[in-house]
Amino acid sequence: MQAALAEAHAAGTRDEVPIGAVLVDVETGDIVARGGNATIERADPTAHAEIMVIRDGCKNAGAQRIPACDLYVTLEPCAMCAAAISFARIRRVVYGAPDPKGGGIDHGGQFFTQPTCHHRPAVAGGIMADECGQILKDFFAAKRKK
Amino acid sequence: MQAALAEAHAAGTRDEVPIGAVLVDVETGDIVARGGNATIERADPTAHAEIMVIRDGCKNAGAQRIPACDLYVTLEPCAMCAAAISFARIRRVVYGAPDPKGGGIDHGGQFFTQPTCHHRPAVAGGIMADECGQILKDFFAAKRKK
Repeated sequence: MQAALAEAHAAGTRDEVPIGAVLVDVETGDIVARGGNATIERADPTAHAEIMVIRDGCKNAGAQRIPACDLYVTLEPCAMCAAAISFARIRRVVYGAPDPKGGGIDHGGQFFTQPTCHHRPAVAGGIMADECGQILKDFFAAKRKK
Repeated sequence: MQAALAEAHAAGTRDEVPIGAVLVDVETGDIVARGGNATIERADPTAHAEIMVIRDGCKNAGAQRIPACDLYVTLEPCAMCAAAISFARIRRVVYGAPDPKGGGIDHGGQFFTQPTCHHRPAVAGGIMADECGQILKDFFAAKRKK
């Protein structure tokens, strides 16, 4: 999660909402993809941190399913990312701060609980939640001051 | 929807699940992006037809929000695509066949009805549903024969 937080910080310095993610090979423990939110610079509303690392990880693996990977992300994934995580057959999702306004795992449609969800990864939420949430609070507080 | 169906057929000829989509400029009526499912050839589980045209449309517009666009797609969008459609601020979604197994608008988490959804496009479902569903049935029937 420290590596995901570093990606979140990096996203913030690019003036993107500071959310970061890494994809970890469960056999080796190596980080196989890392990225941050990039919706503004890419003019792509799907360029959330999770989608960035899923795309990279799948591209590197040459497959659209990467079941030997865990995903770490600083904020609870939204519905789009939760579904993408499921489609990629990721083994486990570890997220930092919960997101009552936009989350899609433990809030909103709670995608993994739906009958339309065909792969349910293990989930651990609230890991380093304070640090992961604080960087977002600081980012938006600074925005409001501008 | 005829143009979306043509994209679905094209996807099928590439051995992708035959789902197609087009993005239409609501002012001019012009198709500004068109695409089909490409998850296999791109090794990208997020490469659904809707995501392909949203990415292209946003890239062309140089913006992550394209409120002057309607999206036509041959199958009810999944949760991932429904959320992406909302994030892109698309005005209206017109879909063909309903998808009880994987749909995310009128099935599953019904994303647009959630408090975590912050833009609700207009929705028209079941348009040319028979044609749009038949191409999928034919595709999977042919697969089973192999």
